[in-house]
Amino acid sequence: MIPSTIVLLGTGNVAMHLGNALVNAGHRILQVYGRNPERASALAAQLQADPVSSPGDISGEADIYLIAVRDEAVAEVVQQLNVPGKIVAHTSGTLPLSVISSPLKAAVFYPLQTFTADIPVRFADVPLCLEAEDPVVFEKLKQLALSLSKNVQAVSSENRKILHIAAVFASNFTNHLYKIAADLLEAKGLSFDLLKPLIRQTAEKVQHIHPAGAQTGPAKREDRTIIREHLSMLEADPDMKQLYRLLSRSIQRKK
Amino acid sequence: MIPSTIVLLGTGNVAMHLGNALVNAGHRILQVYGRNPERASALAAQLQADPVSSPGDISGEADIYLIAVRDEAVAEVVQQLNVPGKIVAHTSGTLPLSVISSPLKAAVFYPLQTFTADIPVRFADVPLCLEAEDPVVFEKLKQLALSLSKNVQAVSSENRKILHIAAVFASNFTNHLYKIAADLLEAKGLSFDLLKPLIRQTAEKVQHIHPAGAQTGPAKREDRTIIREHLSMLEADPDMKQLYRLLSRSIQRKK
Repeated sequence: MIPSTIVLLGTGNVAMHLGNALVNAGHRILQVYGRNPERASALAAQLQADPVSSPGDISGEADIYLIAVRDEAVAEVVQQLNVPGKIVAHTSGTLPLSVISSPLKAAVFYPLQTFTADIPVRFADVPLCLEAEDPVVFEKLKQLALSLSKNVQAVSSENRKILHIAAVFASNFTNHLYKIAADLLEAKGLSFDLLKPLIRQTAEKVQHIHPAGAQTGPAKREDRTIIREHLSMLEADPDMKQLYRLLSRSIQRKK
Repeated sequence: MIPSTIVLLGTGNVAMHLGNALVNAGHRILQVYGRNPERASALAAQLQADPVSSPGDISGEADIYLIAVRDEAVAEVVQQLNVPGKIVAHTSGTLPLSVISSPLKAAVFYPLQTFTADIPVRFADVPLCLEAEDPVVFEKLKQLALSLSKNVQAVSSENRKILHIAAVFASNFTNHLYKIAADLLEAKGLSFDLLKPLIRQTAEKVQHIHPAGAQTGPAKREDRTIIREHLSMLEADPDMKQLYRLLSRSIQRKK
């Protein structure tokens, strides 16, 4: 592994997890850039880097510039980057490669994972989805990615959008269903802890078999008595009831 | 641990996993009852038990009779059980305790887990939700449960129904979202494998923090541009589109 020097732009969960993974892999973070000086300082201290809060102070000396800010802020950060000829990669699931343009060398470095403060991530398993038009840029990015994960993929902007929407279903919406389940239990004084082994096992099953073959439950069995009883239990919450009906119908249709 | 002798009624996934866990814990399965002789023989062979396919052949000698058949079939199995004074427990999340009645000693032994052929289950973690009116019956059932799992709970019929509907959201519906994600990827020639680390991590996060605090994604961030783009990507599938809209709205409402 050839260590790279990196400027990390962003101070959120993605920047934090990615920065730590890079340092652990032996790379050097020169600077952490963030508009909020306190957040920049806090993350920079973690990563043994210098904090920067004014775009004019961003070093021109790094090999790679990684942008890990909210999608809406990426264009602005790109405009402020005065590092012609340098590789600049964003980490967004949705933005096109073209949001970064000449004289910068455009790239995408999208880690397909959910990042939350205080929850460790095994980077070795995280699919790193790369994109660059310039093959030399792609190769450098690939070397960096392979130092973090064994799962490195070339993914076009178009396919990255598909991955992202699939991830919304598989992760964001799934987490919301956990939340609904927690609400149902907690309303009756029952603990969400009771569902934890089930949640883990449900995710574990599809590591081994396709979700089409893993489906269980009343909708799959077309057990109308239970479905009707469940719908009547959800009478007080029209939102939950509509979700229950729609998801059950969708399961039956997709069999 | 005092070994029990058990008659297992049922040959499906619950019967199979439960039977194996009981044998591994040192209990003896006397008989496996199933209407389909081949299925009864197959499971009985696995559990070193005798297969039975006619109700008249069910032994009166066991300590505990565990019913692990489809909900609709439980009442019929109970009627056929001529073992007065014996503990008879069903394993359903939805049926009341009262589906079993005198002269049988009624009990419920509900493992809150998803059981699929070929996917192993760590029984030690599975919440076993017990119910019985007779305290002696409850105590015997509890001893049996504690020999399988460290997570043994007394749960009323009413609360079991709540657990079951919460489990439908947290597991059945969640698996269906995995299926939708797989459909989206596979339609574009992308592999579902790419989502596996994300799915595992999403389930792992809520082992440590409440799902309310674990929510990420466009709906949580109220990123209308991405939500609009995703909805337009789902134009071809009204079902998926409606689910996307409803789940996003529900996330925003529950913040």
